[in-house]
Amino acid sequence: MKKIDHIGIAVNDMTVSNALFEKLLGVAPYKQEEVENERVLTSFFKSDTNKIELLAATSEDSVIAQFIAKKGEGIHHIAFEVANIEEEIQRLKKEGFVILNEIPKKGADNKLVVFLHPKTTNGVLIELCQSIK
Amino acid sequence: MKKIDHIGIAVNDMTVSNALFEKLLGVAPYKQEEVENERVLTSFFKSDTNKIELLAATSEDSVIAQFIAKKGEGIHHIAFEVANIEEEIQRLKKEGFVILNEIPKKGADNKLVVFLHPKTTNGVLIELCQSIK
Repeated sequence: MKKIDHIGIAVNDMTVSNALFEKLLGVAPYKQEEVENERVLTSFFKSDTNKIELLAATSEDSVIAQFIAKKGEGIHHIAFEVANIEEEIQRLKKEGFVILNEIPKKGADNKLVVFLHPKTTNGVLIELCQSIK
Repeated sequence: MKKIDHIGIAVNDMTVSNALFEKLLGVAPYKQEEVENERVLTSFFKSDTNKIELLAATSEDSVIAQFIAKKGEGIHHIAFEVANIEEEIQRLKKEGFVILNEIPKKGADNKLVVFLHPKTTNGVLIELCQSIK
């Protein structure tokens, strides 16, 4: 776990929330990107060495739509940058954490990502991400 | 908003969760501190330039006990470090954000803190914090 890469926040309306976070953080979003296999639109803000990633569903069967239907808008996950995602998966499995997808998938921001089940991490959805070279 | 100072996570049992996050992050907590006026025990982990703050209630009327009763364990707030908390409160009020306590109060880690109402911040409880000199 090198550092916190970003905090993911589930939002209903990207236009409204982009404006809201621009006012809050005092900076504009620097990129917007669709992750088609997740049916999610993302928008990124820089905050020093971290990022804030807004997440809006592009389809009703998106995990973000399901999350908001259940819990409302709010923090969806914390993502940690790792040097070697395969090694980190093996280390965490040995420690008793449950990996949601053992084969890393392509996420936003040119990363390979896996998620840990919140039931093993105090109710916090944890993402591990590694930049694709 | 200079940077993300820490992410606050509500937990039931500090001993259990300290062990869990030590395994997850690969580092031990570096300090534990009680905030008596909030009836909260805190435990801090370093993650590069950020901190993870675990929060456990020391009394049933603690906001953390109330949060867990309603939502379960999980992420409670994101805290941003600010250079001048009074100026930031005024700036954010003008932008339409609702401040929960307009007079900054003493939090953990030798900070003055205020919170923004989640109804104005996409369901995310935002803390502003400024180090006390």
